[in-house]
Amino acid sequence: MSESSIQTVFQDASLSPMLSVRRGKEALAFYQAAFGAKVLFRAGETRDAVIAKLAIGKSEFWISDEDTEHRNFSPESIGGTSFRMILIVNDPHAAFDYAIAAGAKVLCPVVDEDYGWRIGRIEDPYGHIWEIGREI
Amino acid sequence: MSESSIQTVFQDASLSPMLSVRRGKEALAFYQAAFGAKVLFRAGETRDAVIAKLAIGKSEFWISDEDTEHRNFSPESIGGTSFRMILIVNDPHAAFDYAIAAGAKVLCPVVDEDYGWRIGRIEDPYGHIWEIGREI
Repeated sequence: MSESSIQTVFQDASLSPMLSVRRGKEALAFYQAAFGAKVLFRAGETRDAVIAKLAIGKSEFWISDEDTEHRNFSPESIGGTSFRMILIVNDPHAAFDYAIAAGAKVLCPVVDEDYGWRIGRIEDPYGHIWEIGREI
Repeated sequence: MSESSIQTVFQDASLSPMLSVRRGKEALAFYQAAFGAKVLFRAGETRDAVIAKLAIGKSEFWISDEDTEHRNFSPESIGGTSFRMILIVNDPHAAFDYAIAAGAKVLCPVVDEDYGWRIGRIEDPYGHIWEIGREI
């Protein structure tokens, strides 16, 4: 497995996070209201458990109802989240306002940080944490 | 806040996950060896705690040493992870082999699933879960 071949294997790779949640149907509506997310695909529409692919702007992500037997834990089940979503937008204040209006909780308001970002932090109703901002 | 304005606010948005880990320096080396990740940026190179932006193929993600006071938990601190990374590659078997050789643990080997994906699942040494595959 040479250096050139690892680069070949991963050169066209793409990556999307799949967030585990409780109340997947409700979460699907929340992400649409909070971030203008579009639902690109939903597996087995008639099933109760949600597995869905969404897009916010140019980026895709997935949400899935938790399945603790397979170690897919929602933040509510493990008392926290092991990652943050970095959401980059032209107008962080406006984006933040939509998320809050839809039911997100402010952890840090949008401010101009000395490391050169205009950024704030929210927790969504499912326990996931989003940083909303851009470089200035 | 009309439907058209929410679409305007988020139309150019982009999204990257930031994974919380323990042993950030070691994790930085692991993601390079396992997935051919390139380090695009590292904040404060001389500091012990890592905050770094990486790319695998066309996609970017971040890693950050955990900071439990600010509720940035590694999977090791909360006993699991609240999301999965979906990594899409042309050759899932080859990509899987690199991840395993670098120290990832097999949760499900790569198989052709009846929902139309060739996919497998690993856990990395920091407790994050990756699904590696593609549609067939």
